[in-house]
Amino acid sequence: MFDFTATYTDQYQLTMAQVYFQKGHKDQRAVFDYFFRKLPFGSGYAVFAGLEDFLDVVEDLRFDKADLEFLKEQGFDPGFLYYLEDFHFKGNIYASREGDLVFPTRPVLQVEGNIIEAQIVETLLLNILNFQTLIATKASRMRWVAGDRRLVDFGLRRAQGPGGYYASRAAFIGGFDATSNVRAGRDYGIPVSGTMAHSFIESYDEELTAFRDFAEGRPDTCVLLVDTYDTLKSGVPNAITVAKEMEKRDQKLRGIRLDSGDLAWLARESRKMLDAAGLDYVKIAASNQLDEYVIRSLLEQKAPIDMYGVGTSLVTGQPDAALDGVYKLVSAGGQPRIKLSETVTKITIPHMKQVYRMVNESGGWTGADAVALVDESDIKTMHHPFDPHKSLSVEKCRKESLLEPVMEDGERTSSSQPLTEIARYARERFSLLPPEFKRFENPHIYKVGLSDSLKKERDELIEAHRKA
Amino acid sequence: MFDFTATYTDQYQLTMAQVYFQKGHKDQRAVFDYFFRKLPFGSGYAVFAGLEDFLDVVEDLRFDKADLEFLKEQGFDPGFLYYLEDFHFKGNIYASREGDLVFPTRPVLQVEGNIIEAQIVETLLLNILNFQTLIATKASRMRWVAGDRRLVDFGLRRAQGPGGYYASRAAFIGGFDATSNVRAGRDYGIPVSGTMAHSFIESYDEELTAFRDFAEGRPDTCVLLVDTYDTLKSGVPNAITVAKEMEKRDQKLRGIRLDSGDLAWLARESRKMLDAAGLDYVKIAASNQLDEYVIRSLLEQKAPIDMYGVGTSLVTGQPDAALDGVYKLVSAGGQPRIKLSETVTKITIPHMKQVYRMVNESGGWTGADAVALVDESDIKTMHHPFDPHKSLSVEKCRKESLLEPVMEDGERTSSSQPLTEIARYARERFSLLPPEFKRFENPHIYKVGLSDSLKKERDELIEAHRKA
Repeated sequence: MFDFTATYTDQYQLTMAQVYFQKGHKDQRAVFDYFFRKLPFGSGYAVFAGLEDFLDVVEDLRFDKADLEFLKEQGFDPGFLYYLEDFHFKGNIYASREGDLVFPTRPVLQVEGNIIEAQIVETLLLNILNFQTLIATKASRMRWVAGDRRLVDFGLRRAQGPGGYYASRAAFIGGFDATSNVRAGRDYGIPVSGTMAHSFIESYDEELTAFRDFAEGRPDTCVLLVDTYDTLKSGVPNAITVAKEMEKRDQKLRGIRLDSGDLAWLARESRKMLDAAGLDYVKIAASNQLDEYVIRSLLEQKAPIDMYGVGTSLVTGQPDAALDGVYKLVSAGGQPRIKLSETVTKITIPHMKQVYRMVNESGGWTGADAVALVDESDIKTMHHPFDPHKSLSVEKCRKESLLEPVMEDGERTSSSQPLTEIARYARERFSLLPPEFKRFENPHIYKVGLSDSLKKERDELIEAHRKA
Repeated sequence: MFDFTATYTDQYQLTMAQVYFQKGHKDQRAVFDYFFRKLPFGSGYAVFAGLEDFLDVVEDLRFDKADLEFLKEQGFDPGFLYYLEDFHFKGNIYASREGDLVFPTRPVLQVEGNIIEAQIVETLLLNILNFQTLIATKASRMRWVAGDRRLVDFGLRRAQGPGGYYASRAAFIGGFDATSNVRAGRDYGIPVSGTMAHSFIESYDEELTAFRDFAEGRPDTCVLLVDTYDTLKSGVPNAITVAKEMEKRDQKLRGIRLDSGDLAWLARESRKMLDAAGLDYVKIAASNQLDEYVIRSLLEQKAPIDMYGVGTSLVTGQPDAALDGVYKLVSAGGQPRIKLSETVTKITIPHMKQVYRMVNESGGWTGADAVALVDESDIKTMHHPFDPHKSLSVEKCRKESLLEPVMEDGERTSSSQPLTEIARYARERFSLLPPEFKRFENPHIYKVGLSDSLKKERDELIEAHRKA
């Protein structure tokens, strides 16, 4: 992994921290909300990911010698640098569970600490959570269209540098079965998978010899790449020859892979040839510029593809490439804080908060999360956060609280969750989301609203600022 | 930085390597081309970046204990694992200079080594070079429109995890002046810069007090963020008050920053207010969802903005998010190798090669690179790589060879280039590119062609494969 140190942050965090230090504000308590404003990919939901990685990093975050040396060169104040020598995060963090579905406007996570520590971790937090949430969401969309077909992450070579390492983790949370990324497999316990490259075949004078050697070296998991020279005239016939030879050795060819051309047509033709040769057990894998829309199109064409290898669009979260998550001050020195804006949707929501998911009598989700003051208990109505004329009665709903303490005084409240458990939880939560939120075209809009008390507090604060 | 080990690769590289090992091919010499097929962003050029980082990593690349342990668990052969214990890259690398402008189809870099080492580094190479080239190209486009106005990378919070660290480096190569990313500044020597956040102002009861404290703590480089409550009614007037107070202390306010609303209009209004107060030296910085098109639009509107802070679109390379660079076998066991494809533009170009840039008598670029066999000297014509009817006489051009040895037998041929020197070289090369290749809309297409001999060799190889 990356050797994160406390300078993995924006310069202004340290500039502001120095002013807080010099002006005697260093112990001022502050609360920040992490939330996003817009769902990526036109999706009806997002899959929260990256939390465990973030907590791991923040728990051990320090300024190392090279950091302090550099900051000294940059002209930071010696007294402040002395303070940073002992810096470690001692705050509290309240968060949604990793793998849960999350929606715009509502806090996904809150950080409570002294204003210096809360500010220094901002960039790191956004960097980790924005990206992994983006990728887990993308993966989840592919999982949704692919049903129970196998999905493998092939993306490392087109990833944004070591972003690819974290993308493999997020893709697994979003529902992928495996990754080609060996290092991510090693460190995160993700199943590792792979086939063969064109270069292997080209390094031989004949495709058939290359297939034979490969099958001999990898009889258990052998998938032959059939499009190096000519898929239907050379690749598939040679694969069939090798599969038949393997049968004589009591081995079974696992599959063939298509990596170019008309995947739907080639899959159908290959399937016919394999079946005609009595090789109905040989699977067909496909790759080449896939995304959730191409997979859906292949399925609509009834392409007999059993495994999809997805690269670029998955690990870079094309076409969005970023989640717009932000980290906003909502309380300082015990007072609620707000940022005004000419764009009404950019006005922040002050106070420490709790978020409740509205669940019906049979346990199903109703498609609404209410944001309330942290100590509120009886939420009857939720109000649209920006449109004063819209509200919703939630009196009859069961309320499931979503933010739980995950770090107290800089220490994790429980041991870290295994990745398989996070992925399982993501599947479970996804199964609770009604289907109209899952469709790609104009999905139903999940409602997020404010409790009576929170709305009142916020309105008063806006009014007070406008008067001043 | 990321602690790269040799499992930072795709699983199939290791599967294939094991077969090569078991079948006695491990010492077969192989040559791979790194090239891309499509310029990102509809650009007329790309800026090659990432080379020094790649060479640094590859020079020390090893399988560590955790790698070998994991591969053992994955069922790799003990004899092969024993071989991997001593693995390090001992091959040769020929590359374009980092910072040079590069174009589709032609090799940007060639790797020559035994087939196992050449294959294992593929994923790492693509992961580093594709991404940094993407970002340096994006940065270069912004530099081009911004002229000599200041450009600062603000992207870490929206970057794809630690991709942001490498993005800051690539942005500097592409022409950015500074980054907010302290860690990248520390490790790469990039100038670090930053202003202040809304949260700083909100943590105070009054904006004016926040400005005063900040100016006192940072009198030398103070830039005040003016849009927390109301830009023209509160932010700018308070900034003017503070600037006047600073003047009494013989200090100068460096600037104000606009981060929302109509940047062009707000910049003009703010400029008027500042000038009317005698503060013509106070600069105006702008940020908020900028990219090269927004910067161009602001300049067309004559917005008096002196500094642009760019985040998401820069560090994620929106909207493309990836460069489609590939790594293809072109020679193995001393024989040229080729990959055929039904898509004619996907047929590879065999052989070890040299690339020549065609330069006119006065040293200007003519907009053509010729790809030739490595030992050719007298290139008279270059042929379109995919259209047999197109060719170009280059007899009169001076030929500048572009690929130079950067690693021999696994060791660098020279010490690493300082980043400032790479950025300087990128500027120098960019100044040689004729303006019609720089425009955003339908830029002139830079020609890449094959020499007579290379074309002949390739045609013969295609023919031989089609017959077989």
